[in-house]
Amino acid sequence: MRQLEEAILNYGRVFPGNVLKVDSFLNHQVDVLLSDKMAEELYHVFKDDSPTKILTLEASGIALAVLVARRFGVPMLFAKKMRTANASPEAYMEDVRSFTRGKTFTIYVSKEYLSPADRVLIVDDFLATGSAAVGMRNIVNRAGATLCGMGIAIEKGFQNGGDELRAAGVKVHSLAVIDSMTDGFLTFRD
Amino acid sequence: MRQLEEAILNYGRVFPGNVLKVDSFLNHQVDVLLSDKMAEELYHVFKDDSPTKILTLEASGIALAVLVARRFGVPMLFAKKMRTANASPEAYMEDVRSFTRGKTFTIYVSKEYLSPADRVLIVDDFLATGSAAVGMRNIVNRAGATLCGMGIAIEKGFQNGGDELRAAGVKVHSLAVIDSMTDGFLTFRD
Repeated sequence: MRQLEEAILNYGRVFPGNVLKVDSFLNHQVDVLLSDKMAEELYHVFKDDSPTKILTLEASGIALAVLVARRFGVPMLFAKKMRTANASPEAYMEDVRSFTRGKTFTIYVSKEYLSPADRVLIVDDFLATGSAAVGMRNIVNRAGATLCGMGIAIEKGFQNGGDELRAAGVKVHSLAVIDSMTDGFLTFRD
Repeated sequence: MRQLEEAILNYGRVFPGNVLKVDSFLNHQVDVLLSDKMAEELYHVFKDDSPTKILTLEASGIALAVLVARRFGVPMLFAKKMRTANASPEAYMEDVRSFTRGKTFTIYVSKEYLSPADRVLIVDDFLATGSAAVGMRNIVNRAGATLCGMGIAIEKGFQNGGDELRAAGVKVHSLAVIDSMTDGFLTFRD
């Protein structure tokens, strides 16, 4: 999506270790007009998949997910990050490894909000190694729900999480795919 | 707002210690259609205050805040919760006490996203003792920005945070104000 790629080029900042900061428009301050256009684009990509629920992960996935959910007219559900890992029989829990933070945390969703009747579209701001996406997919599977696909704002293509999910048959659509970030110079996939 | 009060009565659950769980429609699963109507109502209440930015706190304030920001056509900014309290010269930081969790944490906003030219509307899902609201107000003040007011989904009127802010001259509008929760029976303020 050209408008998102332009925002990344104009306002994104690259830090050592392939860290891309986009907190001026995506995950601290949010350009809601741009995000709403991104939601519109994801709606068109996934409308024939008829999702009944949008699933994301707190906190930075929520803004885009709620706009996508609004467009589909369905509820949005956000997986929470657990501060203290005490297992609960009432929640689906998965361990997720954060590439940027370099540590593992537990995400969870209350069992009462996902059922086998649900068709779930996962939405997130970033897809890199795919750990968070796989954690959410596992939660969808454990609920017996159907995964419609994944709508992502920015995919770091060189970290392979997206391509592994595609190879596993998941419909992954990323609005901008960065194929390299060498020396702070970004190359987008066509 | 009658529709929100009805959702609270129909789907909210009261737990010991005056804890109200509304995670089926507000802060885990989000009823986006209801939230969008709440955003519309807050737009009408604050439209003459001409906010240039909507400020909230991660994670559960984001869904409503992004819909309010969309209605106003302005950016949304969410204060982040700090896991490790290391001071930064580039951020405004405030300590906030969570009533529900019974502990203190630090919230922060990058200085580059608030300026004296900004007119800020604070939006949040809950207002109880007012600690988070006061923390966000202090951040707005330290940036030299103007506080337009606070738009809240659910205020626990009996915990006085909202009334203290009103007494201090802040325009606080809550879509549902609960004046008592005795024995799980809720009374709304007119």
